[in-house]
Amino acid sequence: MKISVVKNILEANQRLAEENRRRFSLSRLLVVNLMSSPGAGKTSLLERTIQSLKGEFEMGVIEGDIQSTYDAERIGRTGIPVVQINTGGACHLDSNMIQEALKSLEIASLDLLFIENVGNLVCPAEFNLGEDFKAMILSVAEGDDKPLKYPLMFHESQVLLINKIDLLPFCDCDLNLIAERALKINPHLTIFQVSCRTGEGLTAWTDWLKQKIKEQKQNFIEKTKFT
Amino acid sequence: MKISVVKNILEANQRLAEENRRRFSLSRLLVVNLMSSPGAGKTSLLERTIQSLKGEFEMGVIEGDIQSTYDAERIGRTGIPVVQINTGGACHLDSNMIQEALKSLEIASLDLLFIENVGNLVCPAEFNLGEDFKAMILSVAEGDDKPLKYPLMFHESQVLLINKIDLLPFCDCDLNLIAERALKINPHLTIFQVSCRTGEGLTAWTDWLKQKIKEQKQNFIEKTKFT
Repeated sequence: MKISVVKNILEANQRLAEENRRRFSLSRLLVVNLMSSPGAGKTSLLERTIQSLKGEFEMGVIEGDIQSTYDAERIGRTGIPVVQINTGGACHLDSNMIQEALKSLEIASLDLLFIENVGNLVCPAEFNLGEDFKAMILSVAEGDDKPLKYPLMFHESQVLLINKIDLLPFCDCDLNLIAERALKINPHLTIFQVSCRTGEGLTAWTDWLKQKIKEQKQNFIEKTKFT
Repeated sequence: MKISVVKNILEANQRLAEENRRRFSLSRLLVVNLMSSPGAGKTSLLERTIQSLKGEFEMGVIEGDIQSTYDAERIGRTGIPVVQINTGGACHLDSNMIQEALKSLEIASLDLLFIENVGNLVCPAEFNLGEDFKAMILSVAEGDDKPLKYPLMFHESQVLLINKIDLLPFCDCDLNLIAERALKINPHLTIFQVSCRTGEGLTAWTDWLKQKIKEQKQNFIEKTKFT
């Protein structure tokens, strides 16, 4: 009984995720669903990434939080459009919330849309939002056992950003072990080692992102040619 | 519709939580529900606490994880009885899972039972397990904005352990701000500042815990006198 309820919720979400995907595709933008534990550095990564890509690309952010507009205010200070979703207790974003948020965002003018999910290493991994890819952040302060304990998030993500590498000398955390355990769950995972505090490693991430934005536009042009 | 399902789940859980509470009460033990984000230090705190109280009190642990027995193995090495619950995807423990776990644990011989919840700063706060109190851990690496963004966990907990204070010189985190924001949500919160890595501050926590175990036994003796 409980399982069938959950299944219905997931199926309903998936239908709306497909609708979102079609809308995103029509607007030719790249959409990234950013997930992590609380405090792993999602908003800091967005601030850094926006600073780096501003001027070159048009960006927007949908901020997901249980309550408060704290993160949206931080993103707002970078000068790009941001919409805050308050889930009012819910531990993840779903596709319906994204549809509501899109009413307040001009996605046709964007190249890149970030969706910052609720801080939670469990539930958000179950809910597709219509994104092009899921990126997860793991802070080295969380420890190298996280892929073993929260495998779904590592399985569903295309990108793993290992953040706060400036804390490595002060933590009992083995980067190679994280990579080894994560790749065992998901061999296609692209891994970046970064510090949003010092800026280390962020160029590799933003270069990769630029390439993805360009590929997305190229794909659209090629699709249009043949239809 | 969705809300009524959730309400039914919470009501059913609450009934089983009351059953658990009666069983715990008959066994005169203190039960602590330990919650935090992934990697904030729940298992490390348990290892340290068990080392400190071993010999003086009889302890047991119920370990909650989505999958793996990694944490139960760590606790098992301390030599005290431990039962692993694998939730198989679920993002929190519920009272029914605790009833199942209790089949494998001789609680009548215990003074103190720790329940280590799934690493998640959101959902576990909604589910009572029949515990005497909820204790939450916040790692300073997660940042001082967490009470603003995850208020329910701070509201439901009786104890807040701010962990990894050895990382304070390397993080942009203000301890006073955490305390101020947490106490605004929950003025009755007892706060400890600790480092499970260096051991700093842990004596205050274990002394407090010893006192609570003694009070629990005293309460039971007094109750028995008058009935």
